[in-house]
Amino acid sequence: MNSKLSHYDPAGKVSMVDVGSKAETERTATARAYVVLNKAVLEALPANKKGDPLEVARIAGIMAAKKTSELIPLCHPLPLTRIDINLTLDDNGVEIVATASTVARTGVEMEAMTAASVAALTVYDMTKALDKSIEIREIHLVEKTGGKSGHFRREEGK
Amino acid sequence: MNSKLSHYDPAGKVSMVDVGSKAETERTATARAYVVLNKAVLEALPANKKGDPLEVARIAGIMAAKKTSELIPLCHPLPLTRIDINLTLDDNGVEIVATASTVARTGVEMEAMTAASVAALTVYDMTKALDKSIEIREIHLVEKTGGKSGHFRREEGK
Amino acid sequence: MNSKLSHYDPAGKVSMVDVGSKAETERTATARAYVVLNKAVLEALPANKKGDPLEVARIAGIMAAKKTSELIPLCHPLPLTRIDINLTLDDNGVEIVATASTVARTGVEMEAMTAASVAALTVYDMTKALDKSIEIREIHLVEKTGGKSGHFRREEGK
Amino acid sequence: MNSKLSHYDPAGKVSMVDVGSKAETERTATARAYVVLNKAVLEALPANKKGDPLEVARIAGIMAAKKTSELIPLCHPLPLTRIDINLTLDDNGVEIVATASTVARTGVEMEAMTAASVAALTVYDMTKALDKSIEIREIHLVEKTGGKSGHFRREEGK
Amino acid sequence: MNSKLSHYDPAGKVSMVDVGSKAETERTATARAYVVLNKAVLEALPANKKGDPLEVARIAGIMAAKKTSELIPLCHPLPLTRIDINLTLDDNGVEIVATASTVARTGVEMEAMTAASVAALTVYDMTKALDKSIEIREIHLVEKTGGKSGHFRREEGK
Amino acid sequence: MNSKLSHYDPAGKVSMVDVGSKAETERTATARAYVVLNKAVLEALPANKKGDPLEVARIAGIMAAKKTSELIPLCHPLPLTRIDINLTLDDNGVEIVATASTVARTGVEMEAMTAASVAALTVYDMTKALDKSIEIREIHLVEKTGGKSGHFRREEGK
Repeated sequence: MNSKLSHYDPAGKVSMVDVGSKAETERTATARAYVVLNKAVLEALPANKKGDPLEVARIAGIMAAKKTSELIPLCHPLPLTRIDINLTLDDNGVEIVATASTVARTGVEMEAMTAASVAALTVYDMTKALDKSIEIREIHLVEKTGGKSGHFRREEGK
Repeated sequence: MNSKLSHYDPAGKVSMVDVGSKAETERTATARAYVVLNKAVLEALPANKKGDPLEVARIAGIMAAKKTSELIPLCHPLPLTRIDINLTLDDNGVEIVATASTVARTGVEMEAMTAASVAALTVYDMTKALDKSIEIREIHLVEKTGGKSGHFRREEGK
Repeated sequence: MNSKLSHYDPAGKVSMVDVGSKAETERTATARAYVVLNKAVLEALPANKKGDPLEVARIAGIMAAKKTSELIPLCHPLPLTRIDINLTLDDNGVEIVATASTVARTGVEMEAMTAASVAALTVYDMTKALDKSIEIREIHLVEKTGGKSGHFRREEGK
Repeated sequence: MNSKLSHYDPAGKVSMVDVGSKAETERTATARAYVVLNKAVLEALPANKKGDPLEVARIAGIMAAKKTSELIPLCHPLPLTRIDINLTLDDNGVEIVATASTVARTGVEMEAMTAASVAALTVYDMTKALDKSIEIREIHLVEKTGGKSGHFRREEGK
Repeated sequence: MNSKLSHYDPAGKVSMVDVGSKAETERTATARAYVVLNKAVLEALPANKKGDPLEVARIAGIMAAKKTSELIPLCHPLPLTRIDINLTLDDNGVEIVATASTVARTGVEMEAMTAASVAALTVYDMTKALDKSIEIREIHLVEKTGGKSGHFRREEGK
Repeated sequence: MNSKLSHYDPAGKVSMVDVGSKAETERTATARAYVVLNKAVLEALPANKKGDPLEVARIAGIMAAKKTSELIPLCHPLPLTRIDINLTLDDNGVEIVATASTVARTGVEMEAMTAASVAALTVYDMTKALDKSIEIREIHLVEKTGGKSGHFRREEGK
């Protein structure tokens, strides 16, 4: 484990740190978000024949992943090679799992986190007329591969 | 309470619905997010003299609020008149409260939600080297004023 | 009819001309595009159960309308109050009709044209693996209301 | 010829498909658009001494090519190595030919199509005060090189 | 004269301050930049028949003005009603004068400053192959009208 | 030294020139800007406990570097590997030094220039309430490495 905050130079100053000497390798990251929905929303979702709100959220998440380095100040711009988003309805809401990949000098953790977050915000936006108490919960990294720090997988139940 | 999903026309088709005949009134919304941080991060944060990560997150949240209609597909573009973000450290992490205001034909709920979410993602990004199990939790609307639907305030403890 | 090019000042120099003294009125514009598709594509479209390409195109068109003033150099930024896009399959392809509205000092003709064009480009992108000879045809203004120049409606068959 | 729509995973779900294992090769694409203009516009164009509308359209097309992955939802972001746009006046309007190149894992067909379309929309915008019946016609791919699918050239007269 | 920094709330925290209660009035601002060029560049500029670099800079400045609130973190988004940029060659380089207008609750000083700066950067970019010692000099506000602070005009020779 | 303007093809037409056959090498560039501030501003800057304006300017400069190819029409999009900005207060104002790096087929001169310029504009924006005569001065390239043209360093005192 690293002993310091990210994106700081030795003098403690914020910077987009130099990754120029790192190797270009394949890197992937998967993030998860969960949107708690009430019964009214859960019943309305499958009833809407055209323009499934979950499809709108999927598109929004994919497009947001491509904007990550515009949104997160110290993120390096990366040529994403893949973005894949799954939305699954269950009894309490919708689970969002977003995976991003690249072949680059730094990882795509923030791209996966951003995709999951914006997909969740879009589910919220599409359903908010039916429920003002909707909550987005538990956005976290699930898995990460590639790069010097190697493979990471979140422990279940954490 | 409305009986249908947002952003759908009578035929069930997604659209950016017509707000042209609504009155231009002052509207505000406040959203909250919470980032759970471990001890290593909580100790590192005040130790960094220059470039406080919470300040970076505040700037990122303000700038993201202005990008809301680019990120959330069916959001109307709005001339924001105010964005204010508070980040407060406590024993378990950082609480983010974002308030947005406008004088417009539709509300700023998504602007406040987006500001809180991107500020949370930035806190995550600035601290992730110290803790891979960071989690963003409980992004929700706190309060909303203005417009036809009137004043809304989330019940405490919900 | 005007006797000169748009977006030029009296000296013949390109500028974003001053609309500050014009009245804020409700304005709408409708534009149309047509994408010619071959049989293979026309048969594949309804067979795809999830993620209808025409829905993806609709979202892309709506989001592009909001980017019009970023894409078209001399366009004024406008607070769009509505964007609505219809895509209709027929025997030769898909017809796209996009309507934009605003309450502003200048019109939304370019917003409707941009929405129709980017929806058409997205249909092309989603189907190009099945047909390299796809063609986008006949992007034009259908109707325009509001503003000093008044109501315009394109003659049929033109 | 491919047997399915683009940008779908095996389950029929929209995604930005993985190109991480494809080779980085030089790829180019050329697209064409045509803007039909009336006599009043064709006479006004060369008469404007400063700020040629066709130059404005060229700049707009080049800048739009760089925005392709922001506009077209499933497009991969690509490091463009070249964008070149030719606009040629003839007796009926202006022909636009746009060429894009990259060294990347996927092609630049949509970048060339987007550049040609936005250049055409800009010609329309600069001349619309003189002619409301302007039409953008026949946006299509002309040629494509590089990548697994190899060389493609549209047949003349098609 | 104000006694404190801009964009701070009473607690000394950065925010996009509330302008919701200010009146919507017509506001303009004019900014100036100067790019010092060497002889080689000054001779090359008029010799280039097509695609005058100063025209490219004018377009870039106009488009950048519309991006001001994306670039300057605490700037309010504004519906610009006019952007006008003049570039004048003299014996030592090119003078850039940019004017922006709006009808809004806050001023357009940063829009004029951004337009002049990006036009200057573009002149630099178009000519840098001929002179690596080009310098952008003296970007400042020339004049400002509208709003509570009233009319300001920079003293000559300052 | 080159004998012609940048970004022109042999026919004198503006284009984003082909860099596809150039080698991907490490490239860096450093640019400098200076913002002249009056005494009132120089005294107010250290007195503000939270949200140092120079930190806001640093973030703005870093984020602007990532937008360079959106702002400067003929710039190639580049995967930046580093952006570092130093702001130093002295008796007359603040000096800004911005360094950008990439591993790419073309250089990052405009990225460094844009970062320095937007950081300077942000210093201006944060302090303009205290001084309307602030001036941004002397934006220029300091150093450049990598690529065919090799190492360049501006002579002192120039």
